[in-house]
Amino acid sequence: MITVIDGGVTAPKGFLAAGLRAGIKPGKTNKDMAMIYSEVPATVAGTFTRNKVTAAPVCWDKKLVETEETAQAVIVNTGIANAATGAQGLKNSELTAEEAGKVLRIPKEQVLVSSTGVIGFQLPMDVILEGVSKLAPALSDSRQAALDAATAILTTDTHKKEIAVQFTIDGVTCTMGGMSKGSGMIHPNMGTMLCFIMTDVDIDKTLLQKKLREVVDETYNMVSVDGDTSTNDTVLVLANGRSGAAKIDSEGEALDTFTEALMEVCTYLAKQTAQDGEGATRLFTAHVTGAPDRETARTLAKSIITSNLTKAAIFGKDANMGRLLCAMGYSGAEYDPSLVDVTMCSKAGSIKLVVGGTMPPFSEEEALKILEPEEITAEVELHQGDVEATAWGCDLTYDYVKINADYRS
Amino acid sequence: MITVIDGGVTAPKGFLAAGLRAGIKPGKTNKDMAMIYSEVPATVAGTFTRNKVTAAPVCWDKKLVETEETAQAVIVNTGIANAATGAQGLKNSELTAEEAGKVLRIPKEQVLVSSTGVIGFQLPMDVILEGVSKLAPALSDSRQAALDAATAILTTDTHKKEIAVQFTIDGVTCTMGGMSKGSGMIHPNMGTMLCFIMTDVDIDKTLLQKKLREVVDETYNMVSVDGDTSTNDTVLVLANGRSGAAKIDSEGEALDTFTEALMEVCTYLAKQTAQDGEGATRLFTAHVTGAPDRETARTLAKSIITSNLTKAAIFGKDANMGRLLCAMGYSGAEYDPSLVDVTMCSKAGSIKLVVGGTMPPFSEEEALKILEPEEITAEVELHQGDVEATAWGCDLTYDYVKINADYRS
Repeated sequence: MITVIDGGVTAPKGFLAAGLRAGIKPGKTNKDMAMIYSEVPATVAGTFTRNKVTAAPVCWDKKLVETEETAQAVIVNTGIANAATGAQGLKNSELTAEEAGKVLRIPKEQVLVSSTGVIGFQLPMDVILEGVSKLAPALSDSRQAALDAATAILTTDTHKKEIAVQFTIDGVTCTMGGMSKGSGMIHPNMGTMLCFIMTDVDIDKTLLQKKLREVVDETYNMVSVDGDTSTNDTVLVLANGRSGAAKIDSEGEALDTFTEALMEVCTYLAKQTAQDGEGATRLFTAHVTGAPDRETARTLAKSIITSNLTKAAIFGKDANMGRLLCAMGYSGAEYDPSLVDVTMCSKAGSIKLVVGGTMPPFSEEEALKILEPEEITAEVELHQGDVEATAWGCDLTYDYVKINADYRS
Repeated sequence: MITVIDGGVTAPKGFLAAGLRAGIKPGKTNKDMAMIYSEVPATVAGTFTRNKVTAAPVCWDKKLVETEETAQAVIVNTGIANAATGAQGLKNSELTAEEAGKVLRIPKEQVLVSSTGVIGFQLPMDVILEGVSKLAPALSDSRQAALDAATAILTTDTHKKEIAVQFTIDGVTCTMGGMSKGSGMIHPNMGTMLCFIMTDVDIDKTLLQKKLREVVDETYNMVSVDGDTSTNDTVLVLANGRSGAAKIDSEGEALDTFTEALMEVCTYLAKQTAQDGEGATRLFTAHVTGAPDRETARTLAKSIITSNLTKAAIFGKDANMGRLLCAMGYSGAEYDPSLVDVTMCSKAGSIKLVVGGTMPPFSEEEALKILEPEEITAEVELHQGDVEATAWGCDLTYDYVKINADYRS
C-alpha cells in the first residue's frame, strides 16, 4: 500500500535540500537555485530529452548516469537553460559540478546539474558559483528546506509541484519524495522538464533505471502542454538505502511495491505539470480504451490532448467533438473511425457525444455544464481491442499566448 | 514567362462560376455556396487529406478523380464540413452531385463536391438542394462571378484568396485561375483545405495528376497554421482545353511552362493561407538551406513554423532563437546542431542571431526593428549540404484562441 504524506525531497531518510536566490533571474526576490544532497552516495537513474539540441547539463548528467553507479548531489538553476551554448556551456556545467564537489567534499562526478530557462545564453558563472557556495551551508532535512528547493526550481509555473509517499518493503517503512517543474515547452519525449525523486530504498541500479524508464513512459511521456519538446528535459532518481530495508536486486514483491510508489509519484507530478501548463485553466485528460495495441492507444490519446483546436475548444467549454475526431484521424494511428464512441466527463457528470464515429443530437446546455469544471476527461472507446492509454494536457488560452509572446522580459 | 493578371476561376476560357447565400451559415448576409462549371468536360486531377476521418465529399471526389477522365462542375458549401457523418453523409454528397447534374444536364459523375465548416453535423439537404438550383442560373464568366465564388467558400478567412496567370504554349495564350479557402485546422498532409484551379490548357490526365502532386508537395504541404490536419483538405484542378493550344501529352517545354504556372498559383494561394491563418498578424517563413537532403530540409522548415512557442515569439517580436533551435532539435531530422546559422530577415533588414549553433550577443533594439514588419523570414543555413526547402506559417496570437474557443457560436 502506498500512503501519501506531507513532504517533498527531504521526506526520505538521509536527504537534505536548500533553495535560495543567487541572482540569475531578474527581480529581487525570486529564488533561482536549489541543491539536493544525500548523506551517502545514492544509486542513480535518469531519463533525458531526445531533442537533438541537448542542453549542456543534460550532456553532463547523461554521462554520469551511464558511467557512475551513484550520485550524491544535484544542483539546479533557473533563469538560463544553458542550451545552444556550445563548448563554453559544457565547461560551465562541469565547473558548477566541480565547485559543488569542492564545497560538499565529494568528487565532481557525484554531482548532477540541471538548468532551465532561456535558451542560447551563457550562465553567469560568478553568480552560479557564489550560489553553490551559499547553498551548501543552507542544506537541511527540514520540511521548509524541501519547500525552498521546490520553489527555487520554478520558472513560469504558478505553483510548486511536490509529493511524498510511504510504503513498506519487508516490514520496513520506506519513503519517496519528488519535486518537479515545468509549464511551457512541454511535450516530453523520453524524459521531461525537470523532475527529482529521492528515496531511501536500497535498489540495484539496472532495476532502478529499467523501472524509471517504464514509469516515465506511462507518465511524463504522456503529458503535453504545447507540443514543444524541451532541450533540457530530465528526470532523476536517487536511491540512498537509508531506510534500512533489504536491497531490491531482483523482480518480486519489493520491486513491485517500489514501482507502484514510483508510478504514483510520477503520475502526480506529471498531472500537476499538465494542470499548471502555461496559461491553462483546465486539466484535460484523454483516456483511450478498446484499442488493438498499446501504440495505437498512446498515439490517439496524445494526439487528442496535443491538438491546438481541441485545446481551444476545451478552453471555450465548446463540445466541438469534430476537432477531437479530427485530431485522432491525423495522428497516424491505424484504427476504424466509424466505431469510435466518445463520452465527455467531469465532476458535473458525463455526456456521450460521439456514437459510432458520428454525432447524434445532444443538449448544448447539458454539455456546457459538464465542460465547466477544472478537470475534464474525454473517454474514448475504440471497440477494437482491450488495450488502453491515458494522456494529460491542458487548454489553450489567451494567457498561453501572453506568457510566450513576451517570456524574456 | 508567367504573367499575373487580375482574375480568378473565370479567367481561363470556358469556365463559369457563381456564389450566393443558400442559408447554411447563421446570419443573413454571408454567402455560403459556390459553383464552378466548365462548358466542356475538363481533365481532372486532385489531392486530398490523409486524415483517417475523411469527410464524405472527399470520399466522393477521390472516387471520381480515380475513375473518371473528366469533370465538369464543382459545388462547394461552407458552414458544415459533412465529416464524421457516416453513411448519411456519403448519401448527402451524392445527392448534392445528383441535383447539380440534373440542373446542369450532366451525369452526377461529372460533379465534384466540397464542404467545409463544423465537423459532426449533417448537411441541411433542403437548403443545399435549393442552393444548387439557384446557383445554376447564376453562372457567369464575369470577373464578378469569380469574386462571388471566392467569397462564398470562406469560413474564418478574413479575405478571399484568388489569382490568375497567363502563359504561352506553342504560341497560344493560356490562362489558369485559382481560388482557395483555409484559415484554421491548417496543416495539410497531401492535399489541403479547399483549393480550386481552372485552366484552359489541354493536358493528359496522368501528367496533370503527377504535376499537381509535385506542386502541392512543395506548396500546400509546406504550410501550417496550427498543426491540425483537416478532414476535408482538397485541391482540384480542371483543365478544359479551351485555349486552343496543342494538348500536352509528354514531358517537354510545354509541360514545364504549365508546371511553372501551377507552381506560381499554388505558391501564391498557399502563402495567402498562412498569412491569413486564424488570428495571425504575420506571415512567418522558414527557409532552410545547406541541408544534406530534401527530407531533412523539409522536416526542419516545417518544425520551425509549426512550433507554438516560436510562433508566439514571432507575435511578440521576440528574438527568442532558443525556441527556433529547440523546434529544429525535436523535429526528428538528422543534422548537426552545432553548425547551424540563423539570420532573421524582413523588409526592415536582416540580423544574424545564431552562429554555429550558439547565440552571440546582439542588439535587442536592432532585432525588434527587424521583427516588426508583417512578413518575417528565418534564413536557416545548415552548412551540411546544398539542398533547401521553404515552409510558410504564421504567428500564434490572442485572436487564434478567441476564434477557436468559440468557433461554433
